[in-house]
Amino acid sequence: MKIVFLGSGNVATNMAVAMQKAGHTLVQVYNHRLEGAKSLAEKLQCSYTDQLKDLSKEADIYIISIKDDAIEGLAKQLAVPGKVVVHTAGSIPMEVLAVASPEFGSLYPLQTFTKGRSLDFKTIPLFVEAANADTLKLINDLALSISDSVKVADFEQRKILHLSAVFACNFVNHLYDLSQDLLREHNLDFDALRPLVLETALKAQEMNPHDGQTGPAKRNDRQVITKHLQLLSNNQPLKNIYTVLTESIVKSYQ
Amino acid sequence: MKIVFLGSGNVATNMAVAMQKAGHTLVQVYNHRLEGAKSLAEKLQCSYTDQLKDLSKEADIYIISIKDDAIEGLAKQLAVPGKVVVHTAGSIPMEVLAVASPEFGSLYPLQTFTKGRSLDFKTIPLFVEAANADTLKLINDLALSISDSVKVADFEQRKILHLSAVFACNFVNHLYDLSQDLLREHNLDFDALRPLVLETALKAQEMNPHDGQTGPAKRNDRQVITKHLQLLSNNQPLKNIYTVLTESIVKSYQ
Repeated sequence: MKIVFLGSGNVATNMAVAMQKAGHTLVQVYNHRLEGAKSLAEKLQCSYTDQLKDLSKEADIYIISIKDDAIEGLAKQLAVPGKVVVHTAGSIPMEVLAVASPEFGSLYPLQTFTKGRSLDFKTIPLFVEAANADTLKLINDLALSISDSVKVADFEQRKILHLSAVFACNFVNHLYDLSQDLLREHNLDFDALRPLVLETALKAQEMNPHDGQTGPAKRNDRQVITKHLQLLSNNQPLKNIYTVLTESIVKSYQ
Repeated sequence: MKIVFLGSGNVATNMAVAMQKAGHTLVQVYNHRLEGAKSLAEKLQCSYTDQLKDLSKEADIYIISIKDDAIEGLAKQLAVPGKVVVHTAGSIPMEVLAVASPEFGSLYPLQTFTKGRSLDFKTIPLFVEAANADTLKLINDLALSISDSVKVADFEQRKILHLSAVFACNFVNHLYDLSQDLLREHNLDFDALRPLVLETALKAQEMNPHDGQTGPAKRNDRQVITKHLQLLSNNQPLKNIYTVLTESIVKSYQ
């Protein structure tokens, strides 16, 4: 397929590279900042622009991968009738793209993309949705060419997938961050926790998290919990997080 | 060294196996339930007992690896003067062992141990402490024979390590569990999140979690946050956790 990317951030970069590797032709990269478009286009060895009027008409599919709240605005300036147009966002309905083309859909990768980290797309779950069967088939074929895990999900499901990712990724990472703060305050290094962080995630690859739970809250060990709260007595925000999560665990194993 | 284990749970099992592999002689396993002692002893091909009066006098070191709140009680029934006695607990001072021998200390592995999962001990951070220099040397040598990461840490530091592990492991795992509940409610599978869970932990192996944070809370994206809270409107406990962690992230990046 011939593909145009609108956006050149971490998701766009990872996805475009994976599609090129899968044999597709990357025609053009658009970004409202020319710098960004250029940087990704150089990686892909294709053309680039910061002007929507100069957008290539040659592609089969236009993939919008920009900030969630800018998608609707961009779609309104876009006119690619007869072409497929999709976005990659977790929390935006695909219907905002209808103004650009009746062949619209979404292609949502459930993963966290970080500048400088390249990921194996094969293992990344992709969720697809489309306005009609032909469009769905095209998006689905494209998705299957880069990932072994492609599923159809409607907007209600996509919203839940996105929300659950906030818990399992964003909030989890913040807990790592809080641990590092705590260690740093006591001249200890986060390196001490890294093997534990990895093992906790590896364990969840093989078993249900509920069965793998350990620690004082699961045992409702009030002696240890009280000692921990005393250690946090000068840190009210952390004490609050400790209490909320501990009581949630206790309730979950009652 | 000749070693006796008191306790036969996940920590004792993993540690005893690693010590045997390192060339040490496992002399005996004690457990107050004979069944437990037998099970580990069979793995190690050594003797076992549920009677403290039958405890072998032949070992150089006695390692107590039982529930935190049972350690002090067991130590009081133990008399191994001239021998080294340690425990493996994160939240108990080593001094509770003084009644058993003046050569006491602690050997704390910062990792989560799960029945049925065997871990490479080489990468597990071990924190050691002892009543005197000779005892510290013996414990340190033993630790270095099974792990590449051995550090001296006093009780104040050990308590903080243990507390930070609650955040980075127990609370993290509970967030995985809550995500799975959320997905299940909407007929979605936790498999969809597993690559994200792994990548989040892998990222934290290489960079500071603070630099790797992503998501709506980091961007203080009130539109997405409000939508998420609406999705959780019929689940007050989850909504509460979402709010507490989101506001903590927002504050952290202000």
